[in-house]
Amino acid sequence: MTTPETGLPMVVPATDLPARVRIHEVGARDGLQNEKTAVPTSVKAEFVHRLADAGLTTIEATSFVHPKWVPQLADAEDLFPRLADLRGVELPVLVPNRRGLDRALALGARRIAVFASATESFAKANLNRTVDESLAVFDPVVRQAKDAGAHVRGYVSMCFGDPWEGAVPLHQVARVCGALRDMGCDELSLGDTIGVATPGHVLELLSLLNEEGVPTNVIGVHFHDTYGQALANTYAALEHGVTTVDASAGGLGGCPYARSATGNLATEDLVWMLQGLGIETGVDLGRLTATSVWMAGQLGRPSPSRTVRALSHQE
Amino acid sequence: MTTPETGLPMVVPATDLPARVRIHEVGARDGLQNEKTAVPTSVKAEFVHRLADAGLTTIEATSFVHPKWVPQLADAEDLFPRLADLRGVELPVLVPNRRGLDRALALGARRIAVFASATESFAKANLNRTVDESLAVFDPVVRQAKDAGAHVRGYVSMCFGDPWEGAVPLHQVARVCGALRDMGCDELSLGDTIGVATPGHVLELLSLLNEEGVPTNVIGVHFHDTYGQALANTYAALEHGVTTVDASAGGLGGCPYARSATGNLATEDLVWMLQGLGIETGVDLGRLTATSVWMAGQLGRPSPSRTVRALSHQE
Repeated sequence: MTTPETGLPMVVPATDLPARVRIHEVGARDGLQNEKTAVPTSVKAEFVHRLADAGLTTIEATSFVHPKWVPQLADAEDLFPRLADLRGVELPVLVPNRRGLDRALALGARRIAVFASATESFAKANLNRTVDESLAVFDPVVRQAKDAGAHVRGYVSMCFGDPWEGAVPLHQVARVCGALRDMGCDELSLGDTIGVATPGHVLELLSLLNEEGVPTNVIGVHFHDTYGQALANTYAALEHGVTTVDASAGGLGGCPYARSATGNLATEDLVWMLQGLGIETGVDLGRLTATSVWMAGQLGRPSPSRTVRALSHQE
Repeated sequence: MTTPETGLPMVVPATDLPARVRIHEVGARDGLQNEKTAVPTSVKAEFVHRLADAGLTTIEATSFVHPKWVPQLADAEDLFPRLADLRGVELPVLVPNRRGLDRALALGARRIAVFASATESFAKANLNRTVDESLAVFDPVVRQAKDAGAHVRGYVSMCFGDPWEGAVPLHQVARVCGALRDMGCDELSLGDTIGVATPGHVLELLSLLNEEGVPTNVIGVHFHDTYGQALANTYAALEHGVTTVDASAGGLGGCPYARSATGNLATEDLVWMLQGLGIETGVDLGRLTATSVWMAGQLGRPSPSRTVRALSHQE
């Protein structure tokens, strides 16, 4: 136990938790793509630079999706080169298909992500395809990305519940995870897109994936705070050995299909817990909070992150 | 794993967690005492009745403190008899001293709580006494309450951090807990009054208390969500075997000395997690949420509970 500085939690490690966690910061992509109006490219570029300056080393930057579908990120070609000066920072970008992959690779992207669904309803709503059709689209994308030497992350959304289908059978999630791994995905991100999961559910899915040959060290978790469960679920995942956690600075973003505006786990709330547990993240909480306060000013509304509010004395 | 009804989490138990948790509902006392203006007695009475109707069986009703200090609860003598029709519901009341105890016992209160501090600064700020002076005041109160056949809970506030002192040494918390147990307190409630704790810190305090002879079955945990940590801390406490958890319907209340308006763990967020874990609470989440929405209407502002917002489609 060490004495904290003011404004930081007391550091008391728990047994059998990872020594280090890699935070996959999704605010610039997952957060800003859910904004009603597009954020100026210069603001996005400053946001990513500030996130890097706060110590984040994996910052999902944008999406090379057709502007018709996600106009908020229509400036990907303009934004991505503005981040070329960042050293020691991975900048994954989402690609929906081969056209998007070509655009991303042409700009020098070295980390690619594809966005799959565990449920038919969400695949239809979000991708306008069946699950298998969307996997068929991703297969050549992932293979081409791997051939180009890129690292590939496969998002699996609606792993724990679906707004149309309710409960999602675990084997259905495992099947999509297995397919993405077979294509060559280096990493999976298990998304609780509507935020309904609880810790036992998380642990059961992780155990099933392990049984089916997916090792914990390729699994990231992506929790939403719609029902306030994200950090408890994260803690359970850490106990299972997960070392990659998705989060969004200031809690930006959220699923438009979820029942509340509250969305992604806030990176600051996550860092508070990890710091208290003595788990290394490399993140400077003060700088990160300042960044989220600045971004909240750009967006014209306060951050929903509890930690941001507490540390910035927002009411 | 069972299929949920719409709006409820999928039930997937985790191993080695308690089968049942007793929720100690503090909204009517801890929540309403922090309101700027007093809530009408009739509204308080309806609130407690609705909480009981939602299945809560331990509902802290009010405080018999001098009206000069807590004018919000000056109607304790009027309120408490209005709850006499509630069967099968425990209605603890806070008493600051013998005068308060006499008033409570005269009205038939069978559960008493005293409010101690783990730190000198908060004892001074909240009780205007040193820690030892306040314990000396509580000693005859607890003994008299026990002689009268009452169940006595001892709150210990600032167990994990103090806004003036920073880190709180664990042995200091253990000393106050030991003193309260020696007086005869049946139950302790470990308060993270400013919400800074993280799971390792919680587990270390619980282990120390066990080592010093305080069994887990007399320990309740009282977490605040100031930094979003309350539910992760609760999950860790459940893994340790804790079966009494304090929470406040709709997340009402909070510590006036904490750095944010966000206060008590919301009972709905807790129930969502416990229900998902298959842990019995007896609480009907729909009724409870409706109660918090109603109370939010009475108070004229939305509930900060994530679950209340999601289930009631508040933005």
